[in-house]
Amino acid sequence: MTYSVKFLPHNISVKVDDKETLIRAAMEAGVHINASCGGGGVCGKCRVLIEQGTVEGGISEQLSNDDQEKGYRLACVSNIASDLVVRIPIESQIDTSRLNEQTGSRHTAKATYSDVNELRQDGLFIPPVEKIYLELDPATTGDNQADVTRIINHLRIHHNEHRLTMNLDLIRKIPDIIRQGDFKVTATIVRPVRKDGKNEIVNIEPSDTSTRNFAIAVDIGTTTVFGQALDLQTGEVLSQHGEFNSQISYGEDVISRIIFAEKDGGLEILHQKVIETINKIIEKILKQGKIGRHEVTTITLAGNSTMAQLLLKINPSYIRRDPYVPASIMYPPFRANEIGIALADHTIALIYPGVSSYVGGDVIAGIMASGMYRESELTLYMDIGTNAEIAIGHKDWMVCTAASAGPAFEGGGVKFGMRATKGAIEDFSINPETYEPMIITVENKKAKGICGSGLITLAAKLLEIGVIDSRGKFNQTLGTPRIRQTDGIWEYVLVYKEDTQIERDITITEPDLDNLIRAKGAMYSAALTLLEEIGLKIKDIERIILAGGFGSYVDLQSAITIGLLPEIEPEKVTYLGNGSLLGCKINSLTNALRQDVAKVVNMMTNFELASTASYMDHYMGALFLPHTELNYFPKVKARLEKLRK
Amino acid sequence: MTYSVKFLPHNISVKVDDKETLIRAAMEAGVHINASCGGGGVCGKCRVLIEQGTVEGGISEQLSNDDQEKGYRLACVSNIASDLVVRIPIESQIDTSRLNEQTGSRHTAKATYSDVNELRQDGLFIPPVEKIYLELDPATTGDNQADVTRIINHLRIHHNEHRLTMNLDLIRKIPDIIRQGDFKVTATIVRPVRKDGKNEIVNIEPSDTSTRNFAIAVDIGTTTVFGQALDLQTGEVLSQHGEFNSQISYGEDVISRIIFAEKDGGLEILHQKVIETINKIIEKILKQGKIGRHEVTTITLAGNSTMAQLLLKINPSYIRRDPYVPASIMYPPFRANEIGIALADHTIALIYPGVSSYVGGDVIAGIMASGMYRESELTLYMDIGTNAEIAIGHKDWMVCTAASAGPAFEGGGVKFGMRATKGAIEDFSINPETYEPMIITVENKKAKGICGSGLITLAAKLLEIGVIDSRGKFNQTLGTPRIRQTDGIWEYVLVYKEDTQIERDITITEPDLDNLIRAKGAMYSAALTLLEEIGLKIKDIERIILAGGFGSYVDLQSAITIGLLPEIEPEKVTYLGNGSLLGCKINSLTNALRQDVAKVVNMMTNFELASTASYMDHYMGALFLPHTELNYFPKVKARLEKLRK
Repeated sequence: MTYSVKFLPHNISVKVDDKETLIRAAMEAGVHINASCGGGGVCGKCRVLIEQGTVEGGISEQLSNDDQEKGYRLACVSNIASDLVVRIPIESQIDTSRLNEQTGSRHTAKATYSDVNELRQDGLFIPPVEKIYLELDPATTGDNQADVTRIINHLRIHHNEHRLTMNLDLIRKIPDIIRQGDFKVTATIVRPVRKDGKNEIVNIEPSDTSTRNFAIAVDIGTTTVFGQALDLQTGEVLSQHGEFNSQISYGEDVISRIIFAEKDGGLEILHQKVIETINKIIEKILKQGKIGRHEVTTITLAGNSTMAQLLLKINPSYIRRDPYVPASIMYPPFRANEIGIALADHTIALIYPGVSSYVGGDVIAGIMASGMYRESELTLYMDIGTNAEIAIGHKDWMVCTAASAGPAFEGGGVKFGMRATKGAIEDFSINPETYEPMIITVENKKAKGICGSGLITLAAKLLEIGVIDSRGKFNQTLGTPRIRQTDGIWEYVLVYKEDTQIERDITITEPDLDNLIRAKGAMYSAALTLLEEIGLKIKDIERIILAGGFGSYVDLQSAITIGLLPEIEPEKVTYLGNGSLLGCKINSLTNALRQDVAKVVNMMTNFELASTASYMDHYMGALFLPHTELNYFPKVKARLEKLRK
Repeated sequence: MTYSVKFLPHNISVKVDDKETLIRAAMEAGVHINASCGGGGVCGKCRVLIEQGTVEGGISEQLSNDDQEKGYRLACVSNIASDLVVRIPIESQIDTSRLNEQTGSRHTAKATYSDVNELRQDGLFIPPVEKIYLELDPATTGDNQADVTRIINHLRIHHNEHRLTMNLDLIRKIPDIIRQGDFKVTATIVRPVRKDGKNEIVNIEPSDTSTRNFAIAVDIGTTTVFGQALDLQTGEVLSQHGEFNSQISYGEDVISRIIFAEKDGGLEILHQKVIETINKIIEKILKQGKIGRHEVTTITLAGNSTMAQLLLKINPSYIRRDPYVPASIMYPPFRANEIGIALADHTIALIYPGVSSYVGGDVIAGIMASGMYRESELTLYMDIGTNAEIAIGHKDWMVCTAASAGPAFEGGGVKFGMRATKGAIEDFSINPETYEPMIITVENKKAKGICGSGLITLAAKLLEIGVIDSRGKFNQTLGTPRIRQTDGIWEYVLVYKEDTQIERDITITEPDLDNLIRAKGAMYSAALTLLEEIGLKIKDIERIILAGGFGSYVDLQSAITIGLLPEIEPEKVTYLGNGSLLGCKINSLTNALRQDVAKVVNMMTNFELASTASYMDHYMGALFLPHTELNYFPKVKARLEKLRK
């Protein structure tokens, strides 16, 4: 259910979801309310007057009985329970004439839609591993063909299945199983990528188990590993779970992992650690989904090239050394338990192919999930993270590259940086006259730090109001105590220590901004270089797809304002969420995808930025907010000029 | 070099090989010389007079100086050193008029010729596993494709190799190996059976090892396992070795092995035992052939269905139980070390497919080696042993069956039966007047027992002279002390104890003959039943191929006389020797064979004698020497009548 909320004196209305907090509604409307603590009614600054309608909560010790009776509530703890008219009190209000020139309402990217029904309609809901129930004729003196021959002939004659094979381990089990099931058995068959390939029978079970066919999809991130359990009858996600990648204690990023892997026994340790993590996730999602381990017929995994090589215990050393060569881009299907994954003997593991050392299977999985390889619009695919991967193209061609963005987007190299967990500042607004902030944190908890999407919004807002300049340096003449110098470093105080969880002032510093600028500069210039290499321009881009957990939270206008994303209509930007996981899911549901993957990988041209001469020039030009070349950002330019006039 | 030897007074000449003993020349000429001890000059009975030419040796304590000076020599220790004229002394000579009515000169079957040059000429000398040397372009910044991609692309572009795959284990090794070899490597590629199948790269080695490519061929007999090492560059057999199958202590025949396998842990033990035997053989032939273990790229194995299932650790229980169902007739290629064979990770094991529980891969290997599936002559293929397998057909169709012959052909169930090793009586002649024997043993050692081929000759000679009748019963009225009754059993004394190695009289008994009759009866009636089932007659057979170690030694006329083989010109009979081993060898040399094997297995119709109504009648009829129906053996009938007139 949605309600309409009108903010006065701005006279701006927004539609918001039932139970949403009032402060988030204000943020979405682009209405500033001073709010220092991030939520929980701690600072008491976000007093608003409910003129019409009702909210639930909205009261804390910080609100006097008098105010309460007058109809004031604290916006951060008020849940919207009807259509509302809300007045922002004068002290937290700014010149209304300037209000609507700010970024206005928030736009996060819309989700790319992916639906199992669509697959079904297209006749593509044929998983790579299927189960078929067989009622065989029992062996008799007159018909004593070999057990394996009986199964294969039955599949050939009654199910039009051809080019069947099986391995020795399965043949070993068949004589007893076929009789245990009284010649009624269920065959599990793995489909080939190419239609003229072989269909491998990987399991024979007594009786009819054909309705119990499950898959697992796993995204192996450098930081986090996510798994989903899927029902291959219905296409439903039955359960999901994420864990930090246990490799993390051996290095935060892929390079430090590779260095560790080069030590004696290091590769084995990192391999074991990620397997442990995967097994922990499998344990949970099977339990939650009420799935037997032996009922899982396939597991699809995607990760960047280093994650893939560590998973498969392949020396990743040459990935980090010039000329940056991965072992392989494609991996054959294999039995999951061959690498220690705790699934049955017959469970097939499929690894997403990658393209190069720094454009791995996770990116390809995302591209497959996005469907951009089927469309004719020119699409820019951006997987934003420490390692930023970019692909550009459409159904006829595709190019890609990777850039090292540094850890700023994930909260690294930022003084109060943190991941997007409880208490992370994720949204921000600033009073253009008082420079007082409005802070929104993840789950409305007292502030603890700044997450990646929060950092982008912070930088954009500070830039718009002129608190920082295009080089990310603070304006030292604004006369607010929030802008100050500590140990020679300029910073802006977001939350004073009494309103934090950490008992220290939370600030954003010039070095933080510098790291952000370098990260966004790497990302943007990579896209620019790639376009230039193929003779296209930024303005040719018709669509942007954002991948990474990050993509779903980032405020698009802020991202454009700081020059992370090219200037494009927010409607043209969609996000995939965890594209890698989604790609694994789709791969589990339709074998057709595997043929498409091979096609995409083969048509993808990889550019190494290190050997692309223009990259460094583009990068230097991108080390400004939004960019040295403001013509790339005409609307941002116009808006900044107007705001600062 | 061959010499001519003329025997007087018979006036029969034979051509014999240089260094052959005189007694074997006499046996080949059909000339009887009394000779009791089997060789070594022990009994001194085989005195002959050298009238022209010279022999080496021929002297022992049993020959007086006087005789020696007169030119007498002992035939069993005389090696022929020139053309000779030899007179048989009167006491060991028989009525010359009857001489030439005996079986005359010996005919053993000619070997089926199989030559690697023929394969080469036909362009078929393409082993299932090949090695190709690759000089790759080293990785550079401008060309940093994945290591695996580099190898596959090079093979595609420079060697026209397509549809290439490799497994995870190999991918793991490639990054280091490719650099160790400085981008010069040798690829080992396994060919598919079908041309549209995949070529699997199973190994990548640094530098050029392409000239070191070896195969191993192994015949897994129930009793004996034989192995050969082959050079896949030249096609040469570099070394070979045989060992008793170590399973033998768990049961002599397949049924007792299956019963043991059904016990707790029994299958594992039998599996381990045969693997131990194979590994022992591999150890020896590699050492002898100066081959490194990692240089072996393929091992082809053949055995009967029980041996195959025990090798592969597949429960063989249903093989011995009605309706006699094997687990599989075809087995996929796998890594040899997967089942414990001590070869490298990349060595591929190929198992010969079989047809049914009792017509196994050993028979198919022999059929493939014989080439009968390519010819248009109607061929009878007989693998003579405890389990007798028979196939009939030609290039357009083929039928097969198996009969349990019992162990008589291998010396089992025969009082003094033994395998064809030193001291085994392998040839025999009898004086039709005195009933004194002429004994020839394997390697001319003092007699120790009777081997299978010896037993057949014994039975045939005793039948011809009328010492036994067509039911295998002794004529008790001949007045020779050699025919006697011991403990109620009639027997003929072949060697008195003083001339044996075993210090007991060596005899052939009525129960021995009874076992032989049942064995040959099973064999012959199986062939007859099979022919009848497809509407043909014995006389339609144009060619006979004998397989089994046995086949090369058996005297063909004797085998026909007792009714083991159908009456056919001896020239039409060839022997393969160890057809199973030969089939494995050919499979190692030409991948084309694998396609043919699939064709043969698919066109082969298997008959179960147990469910073929006429078999028991044919069997009962065959329990006579040569047969109840003498019209099947018109020439034998005529000769027997003449000999006994």
